[in-house]
Amino acid sequence: MLEVDCSVLTPEIVFKTSGHVDRFADWMCKDPKFGDILRADHFVEEILEARLKGNKKARGQKVDEEEDGKKKKKKIKGAQEAVPLSKEVVKEYEEVLAKIDNYSGPELGELIRKYDLRHPKSDMQPTEPVAFNLMFGTKIGPSSNLAGYLRPETAQGQFMNFAKLLEFNQGAMPFASASVGKSYRNEISPRAGLLRVREFLMAEIEHFVDPESGKKHARFHEVEDVELDLLDRHTQLSGQTTITKMTIGKAVKDGIVDNETLGYFLARIYLFLKKIGVDMRKVRFRQHMANEMTDKPLLVRQRLETPRTVSEWEVTIERKKFGPWFKKDSKAVEAVILSSTQECREKWAKELEDSGKAIIEVPGLGNVDVNKDLLQVEYRSRTEHVRDYTPNVIEPSFGIGRILYALCEHAYWWREGGDEARSVLSFPPAIAPTKVIIMPLSSNKDFIPHVTRLSQKLRAAQISTRVDDSSASIGKRYSRNDELGTSLGLTVDFQTLKDGTITLRERDTTRQVRADTDTILTAIREIVGGSKTWEDIEKELPVFESQDVEDQ
Amino acid sequence: MLEVDCSVLTPEIVFKTSGHVDRFADWMCKDPKFGDILRADHFVEEILEARLKGNKKARGQKVDEEEDGKKKKKKIKGAQEAVPLSKEVVKEYEEVLAKIDNYSGPELGELIRKYDLRHPKSDMQPTEPVAFNLMFGTKIGPSSNLAGYLRPETAQGQFMNFAKLLEFNQGAMPFASASVGKSYRNEISPRAGLLRVREFLMAEIEHFVDPESGKKHARFHEVEDVELDLLDRHTQLSGQTTITKMTIGKAVKDGIVDNETLGYFLARIYLFLKKIGVDMRKVRFRQHMANEMTDKPLLVRQRLETPRTVSEWEVTIERKKFGPWFKKDSKAVEAVILSSTQECREKWAKELEDSGKAIIEVPGLGNVDVNKDLLQVEYRSRTEHVRDYTPNVIEPSFGIGRILYALCEHAYWWREGGDEARSVLSFPPAIAPTKVIIMPLSSNKDFIPHVTRLSQKLRAAQISTRVDDSSASIGKRYSRNDELGTSLGLTVDFQTLKDGTITLRERDTTRQVRADTDTILTAIREIVGGSKTWEDIEKELPVFESQDVEDQ
Repeated sequence: MLEVDCSVLTPEIVFKTSGHVDRFADWMCKDPKFGDILRADHFVEEILEARLKGNKKARGQKVDEEEDGKKKKKKIKGAQEAVPLSKEVVKEYEEVLAKIDNYSGPELGELIRKYDLRHPKSDMQPTEPVAFNLMFGTKIGPSSNLAGYLRPETAQGQFMNFAKLLEFNQGAMPFASASVGKSYRNEISPRAGLLRVREFLMAEIEHFVDPESGKKHARFHEVEDVELDLLDRHTQLSGQTTITKMTIGKAVKDGIVDNETLGYFLARIYLFLKKIGVDMRKVRFRQHMANEMTDKPLLVRQRLETPRTVSEWEVTIERKKFGPWFKKDSKAVEAVILSSTQECREKWAKELEDSGKAIIEVPGLGNVDVNKDLLQVEYRSRTEHVRDYTPNVIEPSFGIGRILYALCEHAYWWREGGDEARSVLSFPPAIAPTKVIIMPLSSNKDFIPHVTRLSQKLRAAQISTRVDDSSASIGKRYSRNDELGTSLGLTVDFQTLKDGTITLRERDTTRQVRADTDTILTAIREIVGGSKTWEDIEKELPVFESQDVEDQ
Repeated sequence: MLEVDCSVLTPEIVFKTSGHVDRFADWMCKDPKFGDILRADHFVEEILEARLKGNKKARGQKVDEEEDGKKKKKKIKGAQEAVPLSKEVVKEYEEVLAKIDNYSGPELGELIRKYDLRHPKSDMQPTEPVAFNLMFGTKIGPSSNLAGYLRPETAQGQFMNFAKLLEFNQGAMPFASASVGKSYRNEISPRAGLLRVREFLMAEIEHFVDPESGKKHARFHEVEDVELDLLDRHTQLSGQTTITKMTIGKAVKDGIVDNETLGYFLARIYLFLKKIGVDMRKVRFRQHMANEMTDKPLLVRQRLETPRTVSEWEVTIERKKFGPWFKKDSKAVEAVILSSTQECREKWAKELEDSGKAIIEVPGLGNVDVNKDLLQVEYRSRTEHVRDYTPNVIEPSFGIGRILYALCEHAYWWREGGDEARSVLSFPPAIAPTKVIIMPLSSNKDFIPHVTRLSQKLRAAQISTRVDDSSASIGKRYSRNDELGTSLGLTVDFQTLKDGTITLRERDTTRQVRADTDTILTAIREIVGGSKTWEDIEKELPVFESQDVEDQ
């Protein structure tokens, strides 16, 4: 992939063209009494969920409080009342919730009125949802008259540079660009943690393919056996959330996933998340309900090895007569004609021949008659030496903060033992911020040169380490480094002073091995580099039970 | 160092506190006739430089046109006229230019009037310089009433997180934080290229030290023999630009560089720039003329191993009488008293004892008499178990774009040969975007599996490569990859099909060696990793003269 770093500050014209200035908005409403600003879809979701929970309580059913506790996004206090609901109402609410991401502002307003959704604080329905543009605006330049925005995604920068990237790739398709950088959205209700923030790190890939290639992917066979949990659009539209488990190979073959390239990226994302430690039993792939693509001036010119003959219905507009005839409507009629399909054109050709006029449906005007002195439609052949086309784009997009959040939630647990539960963050070595904690057993000065040498050697091997030489007990120090997610622990003790051996401890199992320094450093490199697991190392090196603290 | 990634969007209060809202500005003036907006210091600099050049021309001296051509920042057209200047005026202009970065807005205005500096377009003096704040403003939140700014530097984020970083470092000093990220300045006149842009990548280190430590650095001895070109503040103030060459060890010893920590970073910066390929004959270290430090609420609490007795002059203000006595001036007088040095306090104590009143100099009020019923000053002792102090900060700060720009300029050259000069970018392997270009000698299909295998092996070794299998001649392909700065070239030819050997070519020398695949891949790893140079490899492997193209 061609990695690019594009600017965040963007002149208004770019986002005007892409449609963001007009349409990149969330639906916002207000509590009419207290002025609380609410995101309309969140408001509907939270009140309906609270009613469903209240229904369970009213019927004496157990409410899953842990589940409730985990949903950190809850904001509206006092929404939950123990009121019984009919079976039909429960089913209706559940269907609304299943497709909550797919409602427009007016539809959300209708739901608020239909179900009489009131803010518990005021006991009133919020105002009609209005669009709130999520882009941060600013002014560029000393005279401050050039409007600009902070980018809300990194895609535009890659599209703007498409021609350069294609040239750099020597005109060859398919190819992908990639970008990692900050994007900015002026969220109506940012929530706790990293799930919804106004400034966030995102990684986006734009994979450009020739639409005629059928979106085949040369490396699809490498991933076709990867099994995914899928939630398709059809299931969601029916108000269900049932998961289908299948290999990506089968999903593409059966048309559940549209093409190989899309399937390839889904599988690679699965493998990536698994590798960094996300619990894949908690992950599903949900098909988007609505497709948002904006027009971009992307063009690929392909030199054809053998020229080809193209036969098509072509339209010719007699502009001199066309404009004066249709006056203010002429642009609208012309647009429909120029963007028409071959099928339409064939139909018009027949109509023009039969009756001297084509009947053309124009949005906003209805059926319009166009006489043959204004429009000709003919079937013509021509020879092409190049083929110009607009590529299709597959856009894998990653919110790094959200991935990190899920990872932390999945990696966090605690072990019983001693007086208190001790927290552990089970980050895989590949992504643990610190790979190795180096600890002298005590503050004995003889340990210092050993600790320094180990630290230097690991730094030279580009393995991130920290030294914990505080006066806390060895158990306490292991404990707090477990909580920081540090994968491995190295201890220098009195035995080290005698024979140069050190112990290596693995965080999750708390088990240890002991060997000479070089052997242990090799083991660390293998674990961190991913070529061996802790289980492999335990089979190779002598297991060690506990530090011989009596030597002190 | 503790790397942190802080937010770019910053609430106004942060930059109000740091002084940026009031003072982070450049001086801007306008052409009164045409409205051209000018940065005042640039305007003065450019007109004076143009006059000096005009003087040379008038005297028939050679003007270094190449030098002139390189100064891409020149913007004002027509400023240069061939007018002779007296020796005294030339000296005066040169002195002004040597300290051009150190003038305030009113001083720049004075220079414009004194030397009658006119914009050549209007033949008029620009307007009086006014401060133009360089921060980009925006509004945060759905009700859009919270003012915010894009950060103009990354330092504030690190200072804001100081307490957390200190805790993470277990309270131990010294320590450093570091940040790499975008910053934003609404420059009055951004220039071509990467030297002055409104959005830029910067890397900043904040190295916090205990001021009582004398700013010693534990690893200073590792760099003390590094020799630097220094331009000190004193030389600049005298209007000169003479360079002094000396080791950083001597510079610190002689007090030319203030302390070891500062010296350590200067030397490390020198070594870093050299390593990435900057031509160090073109680099000097210029001491800043004015020091800009803003107050930050940084506090370190050090637990003292042995409690210490502190004896000091302490001031006690009788607030009940003090306020009514000084009325509106009381805050100003109190501020001077509370921030006074021990020397001042000792003097006041003596004055109070001798005459019953202390004479205190208050800015804006002159000398103020303070009677002994309003103020007592006494020498007292107390025992301290902790020591609270504000750390000193050493702030190495890097504009990545500027470094890249210098690097490109230093690395670019061309070699004679054939019909046209061919450009080369001599990036060291460590920073070349592509390390290796892989090329089949021709489009013969038998080469493809070899090219694919080489590409996979290098990717597995995390060495960035590209394949150039276009139909251009091998010489043309070498040439264009030299221009892209690609360090090494691998060629698969007919000999490869027979015995598996490949050639490795070095960009700057255009020399080649030939050996079996594994040997060549090892050589690539060694060169890219920095453990061997091309000269080493040439001694080890058979030199190869030219591709045996007859086999085709």
